[in-house]
Amino acid sequence: MDKTTILRQLETLLGQDKVLHRPQDVALYEYDGALDKAQPDFVVFPETTAEVAAVVRLANEHSLPFMPRGAGTGLSGGAVPVQGGIVVSFARMRRILDIDLPNLRATVQPGVVNIDVTTAVAGQGFYYVPDPSSQRACTIGGNVAENSGGPHCLAYGVTSNHTHMLEAVLPDSEVVRLGLPTADAPGYDLTGLMVGSEGTLGLVTEVLVRLVHQPEAVKTLLAVFDAVDNASNAVSAIIADGTIPAALEMMDNTAIRAVEAAKKCGYPTDAAAVLLIDLEGFTDGLQGLADHVAELCRAQGAREVREAKTTAERDKLWAGRKGAFGAMGRLSPSYYVQDGVIPRTKLPWVLHRVNEISRQYGFRIANVFHAGDGNLHPLILFDERDPAQVRAVVKCGTDILRVCIEAGGSISGEHGIGVEKREDMCDQFDGADLRAMVQVRAAFNPAGLCNPGKMFPTSKACYEVGKKHRRLPQVVAEDHTL
Amino acid sequence: MDKTTILRQLETLLGQDKVLHRPQDVALYEYDGALDKAQPDFVVFPETTAEVAAVVRLANEHSLPFMPRGAGTGLSGGAVPVQGGIVVSFARMRRILDIDLPNLRATVQPGVVNIDVTTAVAGQGFYYVPDPSSQRACTIGGNVAENSGGPHCLAYGVTSNHTHMLEAVLPDSEVVRLGLPTADAPGYDLTGLMVGSEGTLGLVTEVLVRLVHQPEAVKTLLAVFDAVDNASNAVSAIIADGTIPAALEMMDNTAIRAVEAAKKCGYPTDAAAVLLIDLEGFTDGLQGLADHVAELCRAQGAREVREAKTTAERDKLWAGRKGAFGAMGRLSPSYYVQDGVIPRTKLPWVLHRVNEISRQYGFRIANVFHAGDGNLHPLILFDERDPAQVRAVVKCGTDILRVCIEAGGSISGEHGIGVEKREDMCDQFDGADLRAMVQVRAAFNPAGLCNPGKMFPTSKACYEVGKKHRRLPQVVAEDHTL
Repeated sequence: MDKTTILRQLETLLGQDKVLHRPQDVALYEYDGALDKAQPDFVVFPETTAEVAAVVRLANEHSLPFMPRGAGTGLSGGAVPVQGGIVVSFARMRRILDIDLPNLRATVQPGVVNIDVTTAVAGQGFYYVPDPSSQRACTIGGNVAENSGGPHCLAYGVTSNHTHMLEAVLPDSEVVRLGLPTADAPGYDLTGLMVGSEGTLGLVTEVLVRLVHQPEAVKTLLAVFDAVDNASNAVSAIIADGTIPAALEMMDNTAIRAVEAAKKCGYPTDAAAVLLIDLEGFTDGLQGLADHVAELCRAQGAREVREAKTTAERDKLWAGRKGAFGAMGRLSPSYYVQDGVIPRTKLPWVLHRVNEISRQYGFRIANVFHAGDGNLHPLILFDERDPAQVRAVVKCGTDILRVCIEAGGSISGEHGIGVEKREDMCDQFDGADLRAMVQVRAAFNPAGLCNPGKMFPTSKACYEVGKKHRRLPQVVAEDHTL
Repeated sequence: MDKTTILRQLETLLGQDKVLHRPQDVALYEYDGALDKAQPDFVVFPETTAEVAAVVRLANEHSLPFMPRGAGTGLSGGAVPVQGGIVVSFARMRRILDIDLPNLRATVQPGVVNIDVTTAVAGQGFYYVPDPSSQRACTIGGNVAENSGGPHCLAYGVTSNHTHMLEAVLPDSEVVRLGLPTADAPGYDLTGLMVGSEGTLGLVTEVLVRLVHQPEAVKTLLAVFDAVDNASNAVSAIIADGTIPAALEMMDNTAIRAVEAAKKCGYPTDAAAVLLIDLEGFTDGLQGLADHVAELCRAQGAREVREAKTTAERDKLWAGRKGAFGAMGRLSPSYYVQDGVIPRTKLPWVLHRVNEISRQYGFRIANVFHAGDGNLHPLILFDERDPAQVRAVVKCGTDILRVCIEAGGSISGEHGIGVEKREDMCDQFDGADLRAMVQVRAAFNPAGLCNPGKMFPTSKACYEVGKKHRRLPQVVAEDHTL
């Protein structure tokens, strides 16, 4: 069937104003926050679950790929239509449907912006925990797809810990409810399976999120170190002591200097590294805890530990961390952020290796990351206009991920696999492990039309490395282009 | 193939001392903590993952069902071989393989008893969080199968929140590693999928569990109420206030009197209900918090709030809660424990309905439960020797579950579906939701040999209620008897 016919059918289903198709209109939907680009055939803006299901049904009839899109802030290419097809934007499904404070939950549409959930309940003393750096732009649907984290997920867990129930349109267009409003539903945990599945198992159309009471009090510390190793060791010392701070973030000298140039938060630009630490709880006893954590930092060689005395001081310290990615523009035309996880105790070794890789490639690397849970974010500074640099920066990122694996860690903490790291999955998992995942995908997405080309290696060879040969379920159609 | 040949093959694989087959030997493995019984053909005791895989391979060759068994303390018949076959006991895989305190984790075999994990690390100030009432007997493997909870899961989450990585033998005998040692692994969350899958997706052979620091201080309160409604409202008031106690348990008068007769913990036998509340944290400020929670209870009509002043007093209060199930023997020859979940705010309404059902059936019902997370455990007192009572008690339990569903809750909090509640799944989920689960099972367990007859309704009709007809994957072979 030709494209014009499909366009007419989409317009009949949704109305003309909810379908884009001209190259100049869909160009905005070619990319997300990562490096890959690909043009969709159509972008649609459904307003109801029924409309989403109708689009999925039509896509199936024409064997056309389809994939969800939130705010496009993803960092691994998850929303990029690498095989063309229909991008289903959730920009018009952005209502908070229900807020149930006594039961600590809210029901929202996937297009609701992360921060807006908190804004809606902050006046009553509640908030939504996962706080990715992009929280003023990214959507709950995107957070569910990527199982997003954030600085304050150290103590309280990531998106999967804050999602009880989902409504979704499965790849065959059936509408299901996964999980229950109460936690720990019987049956298989399909909510947990869907969270972090990067849009490959269906399109989420409604999310029941947990709400949490705001803490009575918060203290923010900035610990300043003259050696990165000392800062790393302080991270381990704090956790080993039995304290789980609400947030425990680290920035190295390159990051500090970029942030200071952009934001003037008062970080010392001669420091090798700083730790930004949030401690939360009841007012009683919190000062004692803050003093104790400061002492632990000093014991590991911190030259200074500052405590924010006012909300303004606290906001200023956090403005540096939250603005760190943006501040990289001061240092370089582009940056490429990686997302690896390592055991905390390996931080010194891994950061040394990252340094070596930086020298080897000749790229400056700034480190700004969730140190408490060992979630690294090396920001590799490069120039996107130089194709040789683009190729090199991807290789440089892969080398860093290999170091994370070697340290017993993983190739993604919260940014997902998407297009970017799909081949790296072979380094992370062996053939049998990947086959188990691919079987799950085949169960939900047998035609392979739902967000194809994501999360799994395109080469089938790597499923079979070191293992007995087994025929893979055929999940990805070879060619979906019109 | 005849049974003798299979016996010889099993004995060749494992050695004669690791295979039971005579009816008098396998009789012990006919039941668990629930009501159903069925005789296995064989019970085997592998010592390694390779032996487990070899047994599964053999079972596949003979189309014989196989299922895992931990300590047999399960409360929904999950370990009962309803279609015969091979029971794979993990009694000889009970080693703690590794303890990694700096990274807060331990690797254990599935046959390790729950409390033994805590015992192994308590001297260094750590513990393993999930604490089912059976924690001195039940195993980590069984906990993973059922996604077990316990009183202290209110604040800290259930088994799925404390399991990062699993090794498992899939139903086709392939050995896989699900998840990674670090939290929040990329790819589908197959660890989360396996936890709570009740042995239907594979046999878990190794578990990487999270360890947690012991709190610096604990305070235990006993709040005494003259009206059940007031106790229920106090539960909501405490949570609404922003306090998540480490534990928030409720017992009604029937339970209190049974416990006092058996344990003499000092509960007032004239009280309508008591709340047992653990508050944990840093020493500083904890007294203030305890006073505040006591005040909240008084505001809801508590006639007395006692605070344990010593560890001995604390242990005595908890001995009552932990011994409550056992104490039921004082009141009745048998009890049947149900396990429903409701929104906390519905506690008063649901407990009234449970009372009505008690009167209607003429069974006394004691309530002992995790009130903080709305996880009810009505203990229905009956006489197992009377078949009419057995039939009636099951029906009575089902009626209570329907009330939980009506209240917006669920039919299981932590005991699983197993055999007992498989037909009730049709009340809980609609056809599309169940089909999604059955598709997942078919992906892992296409021959249906891995723990057949569990978790899903045996009647296919209910998958189709109110939905378009769709052919179900054929997952349960009709007859596996030898």
